[in-house]
This record gives sequence, C-alpha cells and structure tokens, in this order.
Amino acid sequence: MKLTIEQEQEIKDLQSQENKTKRVVAPELEKILYDAISVLDHGFVRVIDYMGDDTSIVQAARVSYGKGTKKVSTDSGLIKYLMRHWHSTPFEMCEIKYHVKLPIFIARQWIRHRTANVNEYSARYSILDKEFYLPKNEHLAAQSKSNRQGRGDILQGEQAKKVLNLLKNDAERTYENYETMLNERYDGSIVDENETGLARELARMNLTLNTYTQWYWKTDLLNLMNFLRLRADHHAQYEIRAYADVMLDTLKRWVPTTYEAFMDYRVGGTEVSSKGKIIIQKLISGEKINPEQSGLSKREWNELMLALELKDKLI
Amino acid sequence: MKLTIEQEQEIKDLQSQENKTKRVVAPELEKILYDAISVLDHGFVRVIDYMGDDTSIVQAARVSYGKGTKKVSTDSGLIKYLMRHWHSTPFEMCEIKYHVKLPIFIARQWIRHRTANVNEYSARYSILDKEFYLPKNEHLAAQSKSNRQGRGDILQGEQAKKVLNLLKNDAERTYENYETMLNERYDGSIVDENETGLARELARMNLTLNTYTQWYWKTDLLNLMNFLRLRADHHAQYEIRAYADVMLDTLKRWVPTTYEAFMDYRVGGTEVSSKGKIIIQKLISGEKINPEQSGLSKREWNELMLALELKDKLI
Amino acid sequence: MKLTIEQEQEIKDLQSQENKTKRVVAPELEKILYDAISVLDHGFVRVIDYMGDDTSIVQAARVSYGKGTKKVSTDSGLIKYLMRHWHSTPFEMCEIKYHVKLPIFIARQWIRHRTANVNEYSARYSILDKEFYLPKNEHLAAQSKSNRQGRGDILQGEQAKKVLNLLKNDAERTYENYETMLNERYDGSIVDENETGLARELARMNLTLNTYTQWYWKTDLLNLMNFLRLRADHHAQYEIRAYADVMLDTLKRWVPTTYEAFMDYRVGGTEVSSKGKIIIQKLISGEKINPEQSGLSKREWNELMLALELKDKLI
Amino acid sequence: MKLTIEQEQEIKDLQSQENKTKRVVAPELEKILYDAISVLDHGFVRVIDYMGDDTSIVQAARVSYGKGTKKVSTDSGLIKYLMRHWHSTPFEMCEIKYHVKLPIFIARQWIRHRTANVNEYSARYSILDKEFYLPKNEHLAAQSKSNRQGRGDILQGEQAKKVLNLLKNDAERTYENYETMLNERYDGSIVDENETGLARELARMNLTLNTYTQWYWKTDLLNLMNFLRLRADHHAQYEIRAYADVMLDTLKRWVPTTYEAFMDYRVGGTEVSSKGKIIIQKLISGEKINPEQSGLSKREWNELMLALELKDKLI
Repeated sequence: MKLTIEQEQEIKDLQSQENKTKRVVAPELEKILYDAISVLDHGFVRVIDYMGDDTSIVQAARVSYGKGTKKVSTDSGLIKYLMRHWHSTPFEMCEIKYHVKLPIFIARQWIRHRTANVNEYSARYSILDKEFYLPKNEHLAAQSKSNRQGRGDILQGEQAKKVLNLLKNDAERTYENYETMLNERYDGSIVDENETGLARELARMNLTLNTYTQWYWKTDLLNLMNFLRLRADHHAQYEIRAYADVMLDTLKRWVPTTYEAFMDYRVGGTEVSSKGKIIIQKLISGEKINPEQSGLSKREWNELMLALELKDKLI
Repeated sequence: MKLTIEQEQEIKDLQSQENKTKRVVAPELEKILYDAISVLDHGFVRVIDYMGDDTSIVQAARVSYGKGTKKVSTDSGLIKYLMRHWHSTPFEMCEIKYHVKLPIFIARQWIRHRTANVNEYSARYSILDKEFYLPKNEHLAAQSKSNRQGRGDILQGEQAKKVLNLLKNDAERTYENYETMLNERYDGSIVDENETGLARELARMNLTLNTYTQWYWKTDLLNLMNFLRLRADHHAQYEIRAYADVMLDTLKRWVPTTYEAFMDYRVGGTEVSSKGKIIIQKLISGEKINPEQSGLSKREWNELMLALELKDKLI
Repeated sequence: MKLTIEQEQEIKDLQSQENKTKRVVAPELEKILYDAISVLDHGFVRVIDYMGDDTSIVQAARVSYGKGTKKVSTDSGLIKYLMRHWHSTPFEMCEIKYHVKLPIFIARQWIRHRTANVNEYSARYSILDKEFYLPKNEHLAAQSKSNRQGRGDILQGEQAKKVLNLLKNDAERTYENYETMLNERYDGSIVDENETGLARELARMNLTLNTYTQWYWKTDLLNLMNFLRLRADHHAQYEIRAYADVMLDTLKRWVPTTYEAFMDYRVGGTEVSSKGKIIIQKLISGEKINPEQSGLSKREWNELMLALELKDKLI
Repeated sequence: MKLTIEQEQEIKDLQSQENKTKRVVAPELEKILYDAISVLDHGFVRVIDYMGDDTSIVQAARVSYGKGTKKVSTDSGLIKYLMRHWHSTPFEMCEIKYHVKLPIFIARQWIRHRTANVNEYSARYSILDKEFYLPKNEHLAAQSKSNRQGRGDILQGEQAKKVLNLLKNDAERTYENYETMLNERYDGSIVDENETGLARELARMNLTLNTYTQWYWKTDLLNLMNFLRLRADHHAQYEIRAYADVMLDTLKRWVPTTYEAFMDYRVGGTEVSSKGKIIIQKLISGEKINPEQSGLSKREWNELMLALELKDKLI
C-alpha cells in the first residue's frame, strides 16, 4: 500500500489534533487513530472514530440490572458474564468507525453484514483508482476437492505464473479501456479532446472484481464481534480474513477486557448439539461408542471431534 | 426532578474529566455532557456520549462522491444539499447516546423507533423508584371531539382536581402494594421479616403506566432526526414532545449546521401530492378553484391549505 | 380467554375461505390458521398469515450455493447442515404473522426483539379492554434467593391469597378510575353527561402493567427462532414462556424439518468456551481435574456441568 | 433473456400448482407468479412468493387504531390516509419475494437497501454463467456536463461502436480466462486434465462488473416502496430503473389501492422546505418575487420550480 503525499499529510494533520473531551477515551486505540494499517497489496484499515470503551458496557449493564449487578464484583467479571450468557445490548453501547480500502469482490462479502452504516466511494460520481488486488504466490490456492467452498494446495511454478499473468493483464487492460471509454484518466487528463466520454456509471462496468474500492464503515461493538467471529474464522476466505485479523487488533486496543472474553467464549468456543451432548457424556463416563450407532452422521461426528480437538476420534 | 446526592456526585465526577483525544469534538455539546436536563415532573435527558460532528458528515459524503463533491464549495452548502435530496448515509456516520428517565407509557411510544440501541432498567432484577408522572394542570386536556388521537380543551376546576387526585392516589396505592408484595421497600428495608416476597418480575405488574423507568438510548444522527421530526411535531403527544424539545436543543449544540438544515427542510417543510401540485399551479396562475371540484376530499384540501399556511382558503 | 360473538364469527368467516394459490402451502399450519389459541387467563396467539415452508429454505440455499449444494442429497440433510453451521439467510426467506393478546409487562419484554414488524392496539385512539392478568396459584413464585432474575418457591396459603387480592383489587380500581377519567366506558356508554372526558392518551397512564394489549407481530423464520430460543428457555419469565411454548407448536406445524433441527442444535444444544473445551478433553481422557485449578470460576464450572448434564460433577 | 429448457420446465411445474389456502390471495399477482419477466439483455424479475394484500394493511391499521378507524369509511380512504400521513407499520404487514437476475454493478447499488433478506448465488461455491450486460445503443450515454452523477447525450456512430466492442471483448476475454484459471467450464467440462484449477473464490475476481449474478430478494411492502421511490425515479441509473419499472407493475397487481396512493403521494409528490412554503404563499398572493432576494440559492430556486412544474419561473 502506498499513500499519496496528500493522504499522508491529511493523516498527520488529523493525528496532530489534541482536543479536550469529557468523554471516555481508549488510550491504546488513540495511539493508532487515523493510521492506515496495510492489508493485502493495496488495501488498508483505518480507525477514524470511536465511542465508548469497556466501562461503557459495564455502565449500560448496571443501568439495566440496577442493584442486581452488584453481585458481580468486578468490571471484568461482569463483562465475562455478559459474554457467556449472550447478553447483547450492553455491547451495542460502543461504536466504531473504520475507513477501509478493499477489493470489490471482498466488499461484496462484507456488505452482507447489514447492521452497519456505510459510505462507499461512488463510481457514478468519480473515477476509481488504478489499483487491483493480485494475490501473493502463497495465496494462489487450488479449488479444494473435498469442500465446495474451500481452498486446496497452493499452485506451483508455471501454473502460478500463468494465473498471475492472466489476472494482471486482464485488470490492466480493462482499466485502460475504462479510461478510453471515459475519455479521461484518473489524474483528470483528457484522452482525446475531440471525443466525449461515456458516463461514469456505465464505464465502471468494465472493471474487474479485484479493483479496489473504499468506504467508511461504522458499526457497534456487538455487530463488530459478529463480523469478526465469522470473518476471522479459518473458514472465511483468506482475503477478508486479512482485514478481520487487523481489526481484531484494533478491538484489543479499544476494549481489552471485552476482547479477552470474546476470544475465550466466541472465537475459541464451540457449539454442541443435544445429540453431541450425549456423546460427550458417554465419552466422559468411559463408555465405548461406535460412531455408526451414535445417532450422528459421519460428517457430523467428525465435525464434533474437530470442534473438541479430539483428532484421535476422527473416522 | 430531584437527583440523589450520589447521582449529583457521579455527574460532577464525570464532568470533571479532562481527557485528551484526537477525535473530533463538539464544544457546545461538551458543555452540557452528563447534565441531567429536567423534563416533566421527575424525568430527565442526559447526553452521555457522542461520536462525530458536522464535519464527519461532510467527510463521509466526500468519500462517497470523491472529487464529485468539489462543486459544492462549503461544508454548509453540502450539508444542505444532502438534506434537501434525502441523502441518508452520511448522517448515519454520527452517533449519540442519551440517558433518559421517562414514564412507562411514553417509553412504550419511544421504543417503536427500532433503529436504536437500548438498555432499560430491569424491574425483573431491581425495584423501580417510587416516582410517577402527574400532569400539570395546563396539560390536563380533554379528549378532542374532532380528532380521535388528539387533545381538546383543558379540564378546569373541580374536574381537574378530581382527575389529579385519582392519578395520584392510584399510583401511590399500587406502589405501596408493590412494596407489600415484594416484602421489600426501595431503600432495601424488609416489610415483614416473617414473610417471603413475591418475585420482582411478577410484582411489577401492579404498577401503573405513569411509573418512571429509565434507559440508555443510543442512535445515529439520521435516526435521531427521524425521531425528532415525528416526536417534536405538534401532532405528537405532549409528554413525548417535552423530551423531543430538550433533545432538539442537544442536536443544535452537537451539529449546528445540520440542525439548521433539518429545521428548514424537515421540521418546517411539507409534502405535496401530485394532485396538490396541480392545485398550487392553478392558484399561482390565478385560476379560481372550486374545492369541491379540485379532485381532493374536503379533508385533504384543508390539510394542504394548513400545510401551506393559507388559512383563508380553508373550507 | 373468552372471545366475543363478533370475534368468533370473524374467525369462522376467515376460516371458511377456500382460495386457490400457486404458492407453497403448509397444510398442518392451515388447519389452525386464524384460531385463537389460549395463553394465560385472557391472552391468545393466532397465526394470521405465513409465507413459505421448509422447501423455501432449501430453494434459497440452492440459489446461493448453486450446484455446490448437490452434495447434500436430501432437503432434510441440507436444513440440518444450514442450522448446524449457523447459516442465517435461507431461514429469512420464510415469514409469519401472529395476532397476540398479552399483558403490557410482557409486551415490553417482547418488543425488545427489534427485527419484527408490529401494529399494536393504540390506547391513544381507543379504550383498552377491561382485562388484566392474574397469575394462577402455581405461578405465584417468591423472589429467588440465589438468582436476582429468578423465581423461588411458590407462595402458599394466606400470603398467596393476599397477593392475588391486591393484584385484583388494584387492577379493577385503576380501571374503574380510567373509565371515570375518560367519562366513558368500554362499551361506549357515557359516565356523566355533564362532564368532559380526559384525553385517552392521558387516561391510559392510570392502568396497571398487567392490563392486556394486543398486536399484530410479523417476523421471519430466523428471527422467530431467535425469539423462541430465548423465550422458550427455562430462564425466561414464565409468562412469556407460555406464549413461546404455543408458538413452538406453530413452528412445528409450519416447518417441521426446520423445527427438528432447531430443537437439536439450538434449544437442546449448548456452547462451550475455549477453557471449557480443555476441561472436556481432560475429562474424556480420564484425567482427574481439581475444579479449583481448572481455570474456571466455581460459577462457570457449575454452568458447564449443568449444560452438559453432568450433575455429579457440580461443586 | 433466454431460459434453459430446465428452467422453463421448472417454471411450468411451479405454475401448474393449484393449492388451497385460507390465506388472502392477490389474484392479479397469481397470474404472473413465477414468470421470468425480461429486464435488460439477460436479466429477469420473478415474483416467487408473497404474503398479504391491500386488506392486510387495513386489517393491521384497524388493530392499531381500534374503533378509532371507523371514521374513515372505506378501505381505499384509509390506505390513502395512511400513505398521506406517512404511517409506516401497516405497510410492513405485507411481504414479497423476488428472484432477480442482474449485472453485478447494479446488484451493488441494490444491496444498499438493507432492510431486506437476500440469498445471492455464490461464486465461492459455483461457477457464474457466461452472461454479461451490454447496453443497447440508445442507452450508451455520455457523462453529463452539468451533473456529476448523470448522463448526457447518447454516443453516436463510430464512438458507440468502439465502446460496445471494448465492453464485449473485455467481458468475453476475462470470462475465458476465468475458465482457464478454474480449469473448468460452466458446463462442467475440464479444460486440461493435467492441471489443477484455481479456487473459485479467487478466480471470480477476474470477472468484470457487468457479469450477471442472481438472488432471491425478500422485503416488506413499506421497504419495497422506499426502494421503488428511489430507483424508479428519473435520477436513478437507467439500468436499475429498468428493474424498478417492472417491479412497479408487480406492485400494481399485488396491492392496487396502495399502488394508486403511492403514485399520488410518493412518486408524483414533492417536498417543500419552510423557505419554499413562503415563496409559494407569495406566488399565490400574486406578489412579485425577485429570485435573488428569495432566500433561496439559484440552484434551490430552480429545484423548487421544477418540482412544482413551473418551468416559466426557472432562472
């Protein structure tokens, strides 16, 4: 990722602010406020603004439960309790706003999280940057044989080179033709003084899905965690996981106590079905179980054993 | 409204904070942050936290429209443009959190605005305060004869006194019986050491709807304006309007440019139907119109004339 | 619950419809369409309309995953897979609409589920029915000693009688005074021809929270299941659980395959934290664990053992 | 648009259903249920399911306002009243589900309407069809000179031909390279038996934004009207307006009374600011107004005159 001189100056200006406020402040997050944290080849994540911290969650919970919360003596204990019991509304009391630059095909996954506010760069109004995502060699994965949605081995040698060439050439050529149709280049120069440009809202359709876009994305802490649980998971596509990983770090800086509970109960946790509970009970009591007669399908059996990290019990 | 000594101390402590932040700050709003602004007899509105200011809206719009927004030269011009054309997402980039104390029957109206986050004091966990709303004499209105939803003349003399007595006595007695059933008073003292109290989640059902509750209510600027447009309107019930009026003032302190555009285009504006447009065209061209042959019903005709403040044209 | 003759006639009329449609139909749900299923003393649940059935979920999933779903051979297998992996959007493709009569204090819990559409009877426009909830003896529970939110033993003898009397008398008196203030009774008759009634929007504040209200409540299948998971749970207040239980039966009639997966993976399932997983692994491997050194608090240890139904391991 | 034989057969099978139901039915909508209505060159809109009709709105309103609605004597009068006064919840009581095939750049506009349920064809799981949008000559508009977001004159002759060629060639080549990278064609045939295909979730990034995708899109009547008001408007991009126009027709078939009120109060109506109201009052009273001294900017003055269709007053 390379920022323009103007962008770097803007970030410096924003960071040099020193305002006074009576609001609560998250010191570790302030340290990286406005920073453009690099993701993929041209993308970034920036925290632009936030509201609240760990104490805001506690404060909201204590309003709800009144004197009823006094039993949980510490803020950390209360936050863990709320997380464990899936209390949701206290976590909605904190809000964060990101500026994100990301490839369009990832933006299309991301936008499915509806409980958020979005202002995206509009290619109806303006010309998109000449930037597109090209995977690094180590991410050029083959289609998985066993999982319709997954990745398999990494492509090697000539084949990898061929794929990268195709991606690069197609993105470059479609972008050049985008400029030709617009009769205008991103820097504002005109291609041919004697021609008229196609409407931007039309020309954009020629761009490939790895072209970068950008947006402001604002959400509350609860929905941020819902996003991260899905998108920082190893089932998520690598390219969105790269963003989620960076955002996990901003979560830790913003609300460290919540972060810890989130990692324990959500990210590291698992769900067990009613049938799965019976299997666990039997295994603990030392009973021998024949997976075929367990009431679970082979697939479900293996999912349970993987979730519990009991690899010796896979069939 | 009377705060306890503990509450007053808590507010003072919060207000004495002087944190440094790189975030944008709304100085006029900071001045009243945490203040308990009195509403009705025991209610209040407090701004607890906020995120963003007028410049955040501009910033979000400029991300969306890129260089396309350069045509509108000033921030104020851009905000007015966005408001006039019902652009919504830039206004979602600001967030505010209130602490509100309000009668339950008003809370039930308020909660219908779904795009907000709420933490309400729970009467399953804790005992509600002994506070209930009693209207002032000048708000003791009779049922309107012409409008099923509205208020008519103010009740006078003996009848007003009777109504207030009924409200007061019923609220007090139901509250006392609430304590009797709980076998516990709000101050934590036990009524009868030999008895067991009814579960709080049950006892609360004996309270009247003018009992005060409280909550944290957080929303974005767009949805705050949607709320205020409906609830600060003269069709709204007086008791919720009293809250909306106080909140309008916080809006003005927070985002003064947006406030001005909001008052012009939303609060002071009106809608005109396609049939209404034809009437206006004819009136402007000096054409005589017979309301009966205008294509509008009498009711609709009068609504249009009232909206345009053309009282001489009412029929 | 007693319906008026007019209501009974209306239900009969609606049920006598026999329309033809090309839409999918849920035959078991059609059998009870419009029926008023009794809940509590005066409440009811009625299914008024619905859209889609189990096959609609499968259809939506197959659009999403294209040929990718062919691996799961049966509709039932696919629905179970979707439920197990928390796929949400296919379950949003079905919609249901209920007509519910319920006490106001329960309506206040219910409305916290925001992703739903609601039309509630308005006491600004109309006079509420003279009906209020009085618990049966077996539901007159004391406040739990150990759980701030819970119920303990059932009140007995004189104390139960006293509580019921207080509830009944207060509800009746506040309702009578409501009529007095309105100067109108529910049947439309005037109390005193020489007086003016207080505005309805004001008089309603005198009613107690066990007064019945009613609404149309419409939601999609995903959010219905979210509602039922919380409200049919044994931690939920009995009075809302009574509604959830009836609605679970309508779920079974509507989408029987989804219902089965829901009961297995959601209602009967449990979550395990990352620390909890380690405990389970050790228990399965036969390792002795000292709860004090398990990394879990006593409370959390017991919650895990209860969730796994390992009562002999409680401490 | 050309459907495959399988698709045509599936539609015939669905349409040959004749189920009995006690639910309300919209006969005009039933006539086109499941039909694939052609939009653009390869797109379509299909109504897949619906719930409720005009009477459902009336029914919901009468539950809310109780006897209070009796004053409005007809269903049509009540629906017009609700529309005029921006009552929203009764219109949420109806639901509709569409199956839509549309270019990705239009899908990206569409998805910004968040209050809807979506199941989109996943290019992580499956291979996208070889279909991309190419505008007709009459829609090949130049960028507007005066409006950053708009279209100007239609491109002519050689330039139009050049643009179409670029669009067509780029879409075809990027699709072919998509197949090469996948090492698989849409019909399932393998390109080179000795190679491994790139993961689908990666290969898709090479496609251009005019590639067609498809989804199930479900929303309530209120949000459908919000969508149509914005997207059937002449400011909307032609390509999404083409979809909105077809959907307007389905709205008319589904809820004809609501459709009529919607066209009068929303589509054909306009908003007037508080300053605009004063201008109208003066114009009606015959006062001469100098636009420069009207308090409106030139731009705002012209917007008002255009909204009122007073073209002789443009400056």
